[in-house]
Amino acid sequence: MKSPFCRKTVKTFELKKYLKDKQQKVNAALEKLWEDAGTPPTPLIHAMRYSLLAGGKRLRPILCIAACEAVGGCETDVMPVACALELIHSYSLIHDDLPAMDDDDLRRGKPTCHKAFNEATAILAGDALLTVAFEILAAAGQRSERDSLLWLEVIYLIARAAGHSGMIEGQMMDLAAEGKALDLKQLEAVHRHKTGALLEVSVRAGAMLGGGTHQQIDALAAYGRHIGLAFQVTDDILDIEGKLEELGKSPGSDRAHQKATYPSLIGLDQAKAHARQLIGKALEELKILGKKGEPLTALACYIIERKR
Amino acid sequence: MKSPFCRKTVKTFELKKYLKDKQQKVNAALEKLWEDAGTPPTPLIHAMRYSLLAGGKRLRPILCIAACEAVGGCETDVMPVACALELIHSYSLIHDDLPAMDDDDLRRGKPTCHKAFNEATAILAGDALLTVAFEILAAAGQRSERDSLLWLEVIYLIARAAGHSGMIEGQMMDLAAEGKALDLKQLEAVHRHKTGALLEVSVRAGAMLGGGTHQQIDALAAYGRHIGLAFQVTDDILDIEGKLEELGKSPGSDRAHQKATYPSLIGLDQAKAHARQLIGKALEELKILGKKGEPLTALACYIIERKR
Repeated sequence: MKSPFCRKTVKTFELKKYLKDKQQKVNAALEKLWEDAGTPPTPLIHAMRYSLLAGGKRLRPILCIAACEAVGGCETDVMPVACALELIHSYSLIHDDLPAMDDDDLRRGKPTCHKAFNEATAILAGDALLTVAFEILAAAGQRSERDSLLWLEVIYLIARAAGHSGMIEGQMMDLAAEGKALDLKQLEAVHRHKTGALLEVSVRAGAMLGGGTHQQIDALAAYGRHIGLAFQVTDDILDIEGKLEELGKSPGSDRAHQKATYPSLIGLDQAKAHARQLIGKALEELKILGKKGEPLTALACYIIERKR
Repeated sequence: MKSPFCRKTVKTFELKKYLKDKQQKVNAALEKLWEDAGTPPTPLIHAMRYSLLAGGKRLRPILCIAACEAVGGCETDVMPVACALELIHSYSLIHDDLPAMDDDDLRRGKPTCHKAFNEATAILAGDALLTVAFEILAAAGQRSERDSLLWLEVIYLIARAAGHSGMIEGQMMDLAAEGKALDLKQLEAVHRHKTGALLEVSVRAGAMLGGGTHQQIDALAAYGRHIGLAFQVTDDILDIEGKLEELGKSPGSDRAHQKATYPSLIGLDQAKAHARQLIGKALEELKILGKKGEPLTALACYIIERKR
């Protein structure tokens, strides 16, 4: 799905190379987290690494780094936050896949954590990924003595976004909505909680630690909100149009779970138009950044053009 | 079970009153956490509160406050830490009780969270309690501008104690040990991880935020390690000698799960002697505190004298 805003950007900015470079750096940082763990690692760390290093898009870390760099900050400064966001995302996938929740067998083309190990290990690996996220954030904050108050604010915001008024509440709403007729407003509320909150805080935290002005931080947070919703609309579209080998999971699961989706509520064409509008709004917010906003522009376009 | 060290103390210090007073204050602080949540609260918050406010001993919060006050600190300064420790403890109980883990139906005399609600809600309520613990800690750290580095250190230590090298690893070891013949060293390793790490950090964090010297903090952390192990030995004893109505859960579950315990390895009398020795060591550590260590002395005795 191409947006008229996006055609120009993709020409001048090499997104593929950018994504590959950032993914490699994030993966290297994630690999390093347990480099001093014993050999062989404990079964718990083995399961944590299995899910974490299964080859995700690393969208939240990349958004965080891109936002940091867009306001003049340095990639290495926010790498711990980038890692923490991916750890939290990864834990949420493990728990969402459990038999008591979405009961999924495949994730990123591999057996889900509870299928590869067992349910108890999957629950505990998720718990441990969530916990280590905060360990990493606190450790990074301690190293950065001068900005310790800023790091505490970032930890607070990430916990808010991931917790009972953000992502976890979104999963509760999503489970409660199965088989029910939601309207568009209710569906949007689910997504703003379930995926939007963590995507928004990824961008916001990057901008904060990159030294952005209040105006820049607010604009980037708004950008994060718009692309967060566009991301979910696109997920709904991919669940209809996507292919198993590209998605890494079975398409059609929304219908199987009788989930309300944008296409089911407003039709496929309208859903695509809605995603494009949201990306348009996101790009508006980037105007204050000038040329430094280029990677974020390309990332916004990628959100609705991706195949998985 | 009475220890010779303890008889004197209990006479001069009114532990019952002390515990009741501290429990009330901790409970009031925990109740306040969601006072601005909507009415009625969301199903998620309802489940979180159900497990959190089910009337636990509040041992970790009380140890934290007692350690803080023993070095001259103020109760209100550490109340957010006290709450966070109880939130983490409460999440760990919910997840440990799940069918995929210990599969328990009763906790603190009430149906376990997954019995009262459902499995998905219990998993998410646990996740949310863990997450909100870090939210509270970060918020408290922000308010206490001057000590922000100290708060980051406390957040780091709590995450370490609760995570893949502490409590969660302990639960993994415990599950892996079911039906296996452990020796005493292996059994101790399980408990040092599963319950010891969080009990130790409760005392350590209280001493740190109370403004303790390095010497005081180290002594109190050692006290925490000893009582942590004594706590677990006593739990094993109570699983044999305890009564359902006092325990709030069914005794005999260790044998039902074929778990190695101190009584099963060294006999009931030796287990009791071991617990008393550990308390003796803990009390040795308190000597540098003088009279200010009285509540902690009484708490150590309570650890092995309790009925639940």
